[in-house]
Amino acid sequence: MHGRELTVTGEYLGRLEHGADWRAEIETLAADHGVDAGWFWAMGAVQDAEIWYYDQTDREFRSVQFDERLEVAACVGNVARLDGERFAHTHAVLSRSSGQALAGHLDAGTVFAGECHLRAFADPLERTYDEQTGLDLWEP
Amino acid sequence: MHGRELTVTGEYLGRLEHGADWRAEIETLAADHGVDAGWFWAMGAVQDAEIWYYDQTDREFRSVQFDERLEVAACVGNVARLDGERFAHTHAVLSRSSGQALAGHLDAGTVFAGECHLRAFADPLERTYDEQTGLDLWEP
Amino acid sequence: MHGRELTVTGEYLGRLEHGADWRAEIETLAADHGVDAGWFWAMGAVQDAEIWYYDQTDREFRSVQFDERLEVAACVGNVARLDGERFAHTHAVLSRSSGQALAGHLDAGTVFAGECHLRAFADPLERTYDEQTGLDLWEP
Repeated sequence: MHGRELTVTGEYLGRLEHGADWRAEIETLAADHGVDAGWFWAMGAVQDAEIWYYDQTDREFRSVQFDERLEVAACVGNVARLDGERFAHTHAVLSRSSGQALAGHLDAGTVFAGECHLRAFADPLERTYDEQTGLDLWEP
Repeated sequence: MHGRELTVTGEYLGRLEHGADWRAEIETLAADHGVDAGWFWAMGAVQDAEIWYYDQTDREFRSVQFDERLEVAACVGNVARLDGERFAHTHAVLSRSSGQALAGHLDAGTVFAGECHLRAFADPLERTYDEQTGLDLWEP
Repeated sequence: MHGRELTVTGEYLGRLEHGADWRAEIETLAADHGVDAGWFWAMGAVQDAEIWYYDQTDREFRSVQFDERLEVAACVGNVARLDGERFAHTHAVLSRSSGQALAGHLDAGTVFAGECHLRAFADPLERTYDEQTGLDLWEP
């Protein structure tokens, strides 16, 4: 366990724009308030979604595209710097009209409606390549 | 993206009453502490659940009733005013004994056991009808 | 509804150790910072998972073991004392490469990568046996 205490510098509420990209909207909320490191939660609905699953053996992301309208039952993630850019690492649980749930790393999705709560940390979070997993991870 | 900075006025922990309604219990936690705007998370189990899915094309909610006992693997939502009443917009991920997940907008559910964490915001949140989506949305 | 106002004493960010147990890592983050009561969120991936479902009628936990690599799409829980020990009550939503979601009470799982955010409360939380449900619950 690598952990550290945080200082919170502010918190924000955002409404995601209809028709925009879900993850880009969260990154815009962070950018609008100068947030480089933070934790967020969101909920709402999307018009489509691209979900990524990381193949831990082949060390590659597998993409699944859902061209259907889905609820965003839950969304959680954090904001850090990756290759000099602000990056919202976003996971989501989506659902169909039957109640069936889909989930994973949310790379993209067209917002139908979305509500987001973001908390900003004073200390920077920088993602760098991790040999053991093949992922870009931050060291808290 | 429509966003604003928040001022947090307090936070609360609640245990949902066995046999009561899940969403009503969260609204009671908010009411007991005078919370009109906030964000919450919860977990536990229900004895049944009514899940809503919003049909984005027909602009109508579709209800699915689950008359079975389910874990509440995750629950996230926010408190705002709707038609002059306190309303807890509640999404949840539920699960069966097989581990199968169900999810969506949780309209109702009979509490078996539940734990809730609520954070209150100073600034009011008012839901009003949104032409573009047919939903009641707040403007942060 | 049994609720009370909270005082937050600190917050922490942790990276879960590759190969360690998911829940034990969260308990270590809490222990490292002397946190006896708190609320947490996490996300990442596991190499396997043991999910529990509580049979509300028989009052027994049913365990399902998933010997497969899964995303941790969302994880939420809280830290309290149980039988004199620190205990992280952990729920999670997991997903397969198809996007299929699994969920429930996460008893154990081997970390592939994990990110956790923990907030600590001043007031103690002690789980004790509850006759009505057969569960160990805290009184807030």
